[in-house]
Amino acid sequence: MRDVCLIGIGQTPIGEKWDLSLRHLAFSALTAAAADAGIERPDALFVGNMLASRLNDQAQLGALIADFCGWRGIEAVTVEAACASGGAALQAAIRAVASGAADTAAVCGVEKMTDGSKVETAGALATAADAEYEGIHGVTFVALNALLMQRYMHEYHVPHEAFAPFSINAHHNAINNPNAMFQEELTLQTYLKAPVIAPPINLYDSSPICDGAAAVIVASIEVARDLPGTTPVHVLASASATDSLNLDDRHDLLSLNAARLSAQKAYQQAGLVPADMDLFEVHDAFSIMAALSLEAAGFADRGRAAYMAQDGEIGLNGRIPISTMGGLKARGHPVGATGVYEVVDLVTQLRGEAGANQVKGARLGMTQNIGGTGATVITHILGI
Amino acid sequence: MRDVCLIGIGQTPIGEKWDLSLRHLAFSALTAAAADAGIERPDALFVGNMLASRLNDQAQLGALIADFCGWRGIEAVTVEAACASGGAALQAAIRAVASGAADTAAVCGVEKMTDGSKVETAGALATAADAEYEGIHGVTFVALNALLMQRYMHEYHVPHEAFAPFSINAHHNAINNPNAMFQEELTLQTYLKAPVIAPPINLYDSSPICDGAAAVIVASIEVARDLPGTTPVHVLASASATDSLNLDDRHDLLSLNAARLSAQKAYQQAGLVPADMDLFEVHDAFSIMAALSLEAAGFADRGRAAYMAQDGEIGLNGRIPISTMGGLKARGHPVGATGVYEVVDLVTQLRGEAGANQVKGARLGMTQNIGGTGATVITHILGI
Repeated sequence: MRDVCLIGIGQTPIGEKWDLSLRHLAFSALTAAAADAGIERPDALFVGNMLASRLNDQAQLGALIADFCGWRGIEAVTVEAACASGGAALQAAIRAVASGAADTAAVCGVEKMTDGSKVETAGALATAADAEYEGIHGVTFVALNALLMQRYMHEYHVPHEAFAPFSINAHHNAINNPNAMFQEELTLQTYLKAPVIAPPINLYDSSPICDGAAAVIVASIEVARDLPGTTPVHVLASASATDSLNLDDRHDLLSLNAARLSAQKAYQQAGLVPADMDLFEVHDAFSIMAALSLEAAGFADRGRAAYMAQDGEIGLNGRIPISTMGGLKARGHPVGATGVYEVVDLVTQLRGEAGANQVKGARLGMTQNIGGTGATVITHILGI
Repeated sequence: MRDVCLIGIGQTPIGEKWDLSLRHLAFSALTAAAADAGIERPDALFVGNMLASRLNDQAQLGALIADFCGWRGIEAVTVEAACASGGAALQAAIRAVASGAADTAAVCGVEKMTDGSKVETAGALATAADAEYEGIHGVTFVALNALLMQRYMHEYHVPHEAFAPFSINAHHNAINNPNAMFQEELTLQTYLKAPVIAPPINLYDSSPICDGAAAVIVASIEVARDLPGTTPVHVLASASATDSLNLDDRHDLLSLNAARLSAQKAYQQAGLVPADMDLFEVHDAFSIMAALSLEAAGFADRGRAAYMAQDGEIGLNGRIPISTMGGLKARGHPVGATGVYEVVDLVTQLRGEAGANQVKGARLGMTQNIGGTGATVITHILGI
């Protein structure tokens, strides 16, 4: 297996992009990443996307986007694992290069969620749940996360306001990210007065419906060495694991087993432990997911993640900075693109290019990309 | 890169399976393949599927199916490239093993097309076309293939009835395949009298809407050697290429460039030429696709594939047998599953287990799995 690194990143601002279609968003991110890497044409393209078939009437995004980027002919496919599609696409690209099938591979996470009505979008997102055991009852994706949050609050005697620091931290970090959807502070008072979507989840516990694309160029270390001016970021681990889709079939509702397994595999591949990480780009689609992921990945004891956040340990100068460019909550969560945005943010930090949000001396970091309510989890550890 | 082989196959009969859901179909094929390989639990699962998000309200099939097979925890994702999804999933599995990320990987192509109305299904299939340049005009997928067939007939002065041998051959071979949807002979008279769907494509030029699942177990050669009683089939090439989705943007409408490129790459990887192949499992979703694919893959000169079929060269004793178990036309075409069915049929032949349809002395064979009207093409060459 060859050593693999990331040599280019690109992204579009996240928001409601009425004037851009899927292919335009992907083009912007991919061409920026290719220019950053200093390559003209990758050998392969892996697209991470969840909703285009329903919301944009478009399948076969791999070939569509490769062609629109001027790369007609290269191999290209889409990888899907609900909201973990972006991370899954990166993993496929890493293996294409590691196996020798490609020397360079582009990855693009792209999602255009605002083409559908709110009802259509909610229905499309609900396909991440088990259609025959959950979706059929009309449960939305927010409602499933609300069940988890309710259980967490009950089991660990944690009040709702204890989750506020996750959202406040994310919004604070987004202020300095020009690509973030919400570049504004969130106060505790605003959090506490926010309308409730599905109790106990309120507006600020939840990430937004939005459009965006992020891209990464993966290469073998040999290719990277031949490219002048690039700063290769090394892939130290790429691991994934699964759990049941339906919550009622989990052995332990609050343990997020796939996140735990995926993180364990990643630590083993990299020969590292949680304390080695300088930052963690967490999948904070809902504040409850941030808490559960921090615990499953070994950064907090069970039931303690919210208190850890209250103690300032997740801030840019804390023990384990999370959502350093705004996270899913404030940077935005175009679902199939998110896993790639997480990696772009981590690479930005490891290269020391995060500006006012720079985590000082960041050399090792982790991303965790979660599909559904934890059914597919992809973990990457990167190092400079 | 490690040597990779296929050590187990499984499939469900193809048809209208009202009593089985996606997960049941996948379970049947995967557990049969695992039993055939003599393994309990693969390290990873790659699902090929195109339509579940729209027709079955279900995304994240990887985790769903892994769990239903009793493999909770293993890594699992879905790979999508329209009708080439099955071949793309196999390619992902091959790379997972080749890169050392997995020692065994299961592949499952699965599709349940009959859950939707005929209009919903036609709309879902049209997502393989370019939504903004083709789909928006209301063009169906059959209509796009009809344009290609019309052009072929015009350019090469080939009459419609010249395509009949493709369908007659497929139906003839399906008679001895208990998993085929149409186990009945097709006569030239019936072909000529068939109702027209989109001129010039008639009912027998077109593959059926259907349900089914096929599975393959991929392993490193080291793992295969340790399993008693298996007959490993070697992966000699796994290659893919792309073209524009929209037909109007092709430089040459009848050259099927992605099929040509993909085949060329595959021959190069394997160090073989078309004449070395003992059989070719062709993507005969429409008879025009069989003709174009035979020409692009180097088995016939341009404009000659239909005549080659008339001369009996595609029969079980012909120069290059195709659709040996019935092909997409008569075995059936559950779209995301088809690429895996093609491979299962080829493995059956190479193992010498094809019964009355056995291609004598078959040692080398090729599959070609086509997405859309040729936008994504995945070619595999296998050998015993």
